[in-house]
Amino acid sequence: MDPILLISIAASLVTLIYSAFLVVRILRLPAGDEKVQEIAKAIAEGAAAYLARQNKTVAVVAIVLTAVLWATLGVYAAGGFLIGALASVLAGYSGMMVAVRSNSRTTEAAKKGLPEALYVAFQGGSVTGLIVGGLALLSISIVIFLSTVLGFEPNMALVALGFGGSLISVFARLGGGIYTKGADVGTDIVGKIEKGIPEDDPRNPGVVADLVGDNVGDDAGMAADLFETYVVTAVSAILLGSLLFGGGANVLFPLLVSAISLIACLVGTFFVRLSNSKRIMPALYKGVGATAIFATIGVVLALRILPPNIPQLSDSSILGIFLVGVAITTGMIVTTEFFTGKNSGPVRKVAEAGASGHATNIIAGLALSMKATLFPILLIAVGILASYILGGLFGIALGAVSMLSLTAIVVAIDAFGPITDNAGGIAEMSGQSESVRKVTDSLDAVGNTTKAVTKAYAIASAGLASLVLFAAYTEELARRGMTESFSLSDPYVLVGLFLGASLPYLFAGFAMEAVGRASQAIVAEIRRQFKEIKGILAGTARPEYAKCVDIVTKAALREMIIPALIPVITPIAVGLLLGSRALGGLLMGIIITGLFVAISMTTGGAAWDNAKKYIEDGNLGGKGSVAHQSAVTGDTVGDPYKDTAGPAINPMIKVANVVALLLAPFLV
Amino acid sequence: MDPILLISIAASLVTLIYSAFLVVRILRLPAGDEKVQEIAKAIAEGAAAYLARQNKTVAVVAIVLTAVLWATLGVYAAGGFLIGALASVLAGYSGMMVAVRSNSRTTEAAKKGLPEALYVAFQGGSVTGLIVGGLALLSISIVIFLSTVLGFEPNMALVALGFGGSLISVFARLGGGIYTKGADVGTDIVGKIEKGIPEDDPRNPGVVADLVGDNVGDDAGMAADLFETYVVTAVSAILLGSLLFGGGANVLFPLLVSAISLIACLVGTFFVRLSNSKRIMPALYKGVGATAIFATIGVVLALRILPPNIPQLSDSSILGIFLVGVAITTGMIVTTEFFTGKNSGPVRKVAEAGASGHATNIIAGLALSMKATLFPILLIAVGILASYILGGLFGIALGAVSMLSLTAIVVAIDAFGPITDNAGGIAEMSGQSESVRKVTDSLDAVGNTTKAVTKAYAIASAGLASLVLFAAYTEELARRGMTESFSLSDPYVLVGLFLGASLPYLFAGFAMEAVGRASQAIVAEIRRQFKEIKGILAGTARPEYAKCVDIVTKAALREMIIPALIPVITPIAVGLLLGSRALGGLLMGIIITGLFVAISMTTGGAAWDNAKKYIEDGNLGGKGSVAHQSAVTGDTVGDPYKDTAGPAINPMIKVANVVALLLAPFLV
Repeated sequence: MDPILLISIAASLVTLIYSAFLVVRILRLPAGDEKVQEIAKAIAEGAAAYLARQNKTVAVVAIVLTAVLWATLGVYAAGGFLIGALASVLAGYSGMMVAVRSNSRTTEAAKKGLPEALYVAFQGGSVTGLIVGGLALLSISIVIFLSTVLGFEPNMALVALGFGGSLISVFARLGGGIYTKGADVGTDIVGKIEKGIPEDDPRNPGVVADLVGDNVGDDAGMAADLFETYVVTAVSAILLGSLLFGGGANVLFPLLVSAISLIACLVGTFFVRLSNSKRIMPALYKGVGATAIFATIGVVLALRILPPNIPQLSDSSILGIFLVGVAITTGMIVTTEFFTGKNSGPVRKVAEAGASGHATNIIAGLALSMKATLFPILLIAVGILASYILGGLFGIALGAVSMLSLTAIVVAIDAFGPITDNAGGIAEMSGQSESVRKVTDSLDAVGNTTKAVTKAYAIASAGLASLVLFAAYTEELARRGMTESFSLSDPYVLVGLFLGASLPYLFAGFAMEAVGRASQAIVAEIRRQFKEIKGILAGTARPEYAKCVDIVTKAALREMIIPALIPVITPIAVGLLLGSRALGGLLMGIIITGLFVAISMTTGGAAWDNAKKYIEDGNLGGKGSVAHQSAVTGDTVGDPYKDTAGPAINPMIKVANVVALLLAPFLV
Repeated sequence: MDPILLISIAASLVTLIYSAFLVVRILRLPAGDEKVQEIAKAIAEGAAAYLARQNKTVAVVAIVLTAVLWATLGVYAAGGFLIGALASVLAGYSGMMVAVRSNSRTTEAAKKGLPEALYVAFQGGSVTGLIVGGLALLSISIVIFLSTVLGFEPNMALVALGFGGSLISVFARLGGGIYTKGADVGTDIVGKIEKGIPEDDPRNPGVVADLVGDNVGDDAGMAADLFETYVVTAVSAILLGSLLFGGGANVLFPLLVSAISLIACLVGTFFVRLSNSKRIMPALYKGVGATAIFATIGVVLALRILPPNIPQLSDSSILGIFLVGVAITTGMIVTTEFFTGKNSGPVRKVAEAGASGHATNIIAGLALSMKATLFPILLIAVGILASYILGGLFGIALGAVSMLSLTAIVVAIDAFGPITDNAGGIAEMSGQSESVRKVTDSLDAVGNTTKAVTKAYAIASAGLASLVLFAAYTEELARRGMTESFSLSDPYVLVGLFLGASLPYLFAGFAMEAVGRASQAIVAEIRRQFKEIKGILAGTARPEYAKCVDIVTKAALREMIIPALIPVITPIAVGLLLGSRALGGLLMGIIITGLFVAISMTTGGAAWDNAKKYIEDGNLGGKGSVAHQSAVTGDTVGDPYKDTAGPAINPMIKVANVVALLLAPFLV
């Protein structure tokens, strides 16, 4: 067996086994008193029920597509697709199942203090991160391993593997996003606005649905998304390498980078520790920093021990490209914090604008969301140029792989977010003491920032990954004798560009509307319960939480189908009707506006959220002031922005590009 | 002299002379009682003062650029630039000066009835429309005429002419847009929200500034914008023709189409008449329909009398392309009405969503704004393909010219909008009877729709015009020996695309923030007056209207500079630093996201506006209901969307493309 393949499989198995060990350790921790356990059980059941039904719905689509792939591209492509889809489901599911068990344990640990609670929450997040990285690397390695054993050409099966992951991911992001924000907005409308009761109040019938939402959206959806980005990036780099260099070079080199970095991520998790200052964010960043250093050392060693022999690519260039990837990640973190941090200038401006009313808060937030696209785009542009100058087209692919190599640790600090969010909710619902809630609140606030940071990371990496996919598409066509220049002067390319550019807008518009409809459904149910079940507000009767969970589940699943099919069907239609050049334009069009729509939505949404938190810290008149009322409106508008439409665009961009790659043989 | 040149000059002179005749006729109409005249005078003075100061500010930039052009491209380019700038200023200024005299006369005519008021308002609008078309055609013809007399090569001078127009236009759209919405939002915040007095109430110190804003934004800004689009489109078509076909073909043919259509527009204005049903919109559309028919007949005749002799372009293809242009215009009108009409389904959905609060109205409006981009983009895409199939690259240019050939009549029904808006305001301020206000209100409601329709038309035509400019840029480079393919696989093109795509976002973000700051300035002043001048609210003391006008003027001029320079400086920087391929990518990037940002903003803004009007008609609880309060928020958010950032993107797209054309000689 190829030594790189061996290393990859070993690294992913080590990571998965360590995750299992972490799970056991988390489950052994005290799960809290009876009330805490009861709430946690309701959340876990709701989350499991949602995911089971989501997977049942997606299974129908997946079976149809497996059949289509089998018929058109053969059994190996169908098999690759299935492996990708199943691994993606598994990553989301297992990560989430650990999260819904870490939440109550974090609440319980918060009784002892901040370091203990941080420890539990981060261990829970680490499981998701490591499983995502481990399963992604393992599934790619398995397909390649099978191709050598069974003797088939792996490229199409690898693309199909990416397709399986992407498809699950677009459904998980959309369905989870619609669920979480439909529940959040709907619960807030009746609870906070109509009845005047605080967030996470146990008297609100929608509160469990809201807490379930954090898990299915921010955890399962995000995990599926990054699983897919990781797979697709590695796959497209391998593919591009084999198209550009053929059998001569060691095209599995990107896998080696991923394997080394995965172990670096595992080691990096040990470096997450509170210093004496007790500031949580630096504690998390210590883990990221340590990972980056270990991964760099690992890459240096790997270049000596297993030189990749890639034509015109020196070792120092490869190291340079790796550092470019790490630098983009760092840059995205810095710029996201600048535009969304609770005390940053731009966020304060949004909060201040709200002193004149709802509309001025919204205008300021929209302006911020648009301006915030510049720096991430500059980072991506500089990254493209730098890695191209260092290593040509393959350099860009390697840059994307390098950026993605930090996935496991970034997902870990992200998955920490929904756990602490839930921990706070459980503390509130079970009436924990002030000191416990103070701990969970401080963790929750940091969780908001890490969620925003990961979204920016996910989008930037999705952009780079799609560019690599696009390059693979053009090379694949060239291999089949269609050397297209995809010139901007070609009207077919142009029309494709315009059509592609319209898809993220259409998709985001649908997603926003879907949240509106899902929230209206739960609003009606909550109002009904308040009216029909006497004693809910007085606290003498228990609301029917499960009913609300059920209604949002149905609404989210109904609403996710049509938008999720847009990136599957449109490339096929355009490719077959207008040809390969229009399809190339379409792909690039989706990437371009997709990046802008996604970045502006996720950044704007996080800024609105933190503008509210800034006011709730006592600034600008604090809670109840005009500025605060406006900020609540801004936060609600930001919800579907940052948690539904924005992040769902990542997988959408990649699904379209992967579909185009699969379509290539039929365009000739 | 070339017969086409002769016809163009004649057509433009006839149009301008007819406009002068219209002006005289309008000025002879009764201008209303003393109070009406006093208000109208304050508006006219404020508008003139604003425009004078705007022009003074822009003059500084223009003088610098004239010197730069003279030094780098010679005296003829500098001359062309000056002619374009001056003609653009003249078009905006004279159109607006007539508008601020037609407003009070419309109020006065409303005493007699709807047909009389419609007549006056439309005559006033026609002056702007015909002056825009006439001056645009005249300035192009003069430059070409001078080139034959003085014996210089006209191409660079023509491009510089377009640059002059574009530059004024981007300042006028931005400055006017910031002014009008700064005044509008600020006046509403204190008047409607804090003091609870109705719109256009004479006790509000900001009310005159608000009425001035309608004229400097919707009239002068819009006129400068379409003047520029018209010039740039015709110029780039002539340029592209001469680059593609050289001296053989009759490259002035686009001018002939414009000249014929200009006369058709003049004749078309006579067809605007109320039928027995008294519905205003159909009366206006009758004018557009008649123009289209006359223009088509004219083009058929022209093809027989002065065949263009363009290689590979049959007469029937040319006629087909002309009809494609007309069809795009019609399609844009239909889709805009569908998404923004007061009683349309999408607008009703926005209104209904507001029943759950401010945030749900905003979410629904944002979703609509994103989804509304699809049809206009499909129309543009189909238009590009159809005109390309019929006539190649030059076919697209001819399609753009055909679309723009209706400019004069479209501007006429648009400029009707601010006149009726003002007429309503004057009626309110001067305390006219209920019946007069009913007439002006019904005209005003239609004016809202025509404004939205023209914006969509302006954006679609700007998109097509920029594509022609882009084609001219690539051909110009090719002529200089740089045959670039602008391939999407080229990282420099890609980086250019990303950078270009970020500019409309940045620009729109700046524009939104500028409105926020301008409105904060006037809010402070209005609050001061209410506090310091006793008796304003009781109606016993007169507010200092001029102070507010002055403050918004200063704020708007200060805020417009930086964003307006973005499209001038960025192409130069990218072209010189990253080269011609990155610059090509930049241009296309600006066009792509520019179209989406502009369409979504103008459509969304108009939909929010009409959702409010729909509720004010008594639906969903009418005025004062929760839905209405939410709709007021939505309308305010929509203000800078539809009247500042959105429309200012048109000239911004073209400025960047024109600058690139001027830069071409220095990229070799």
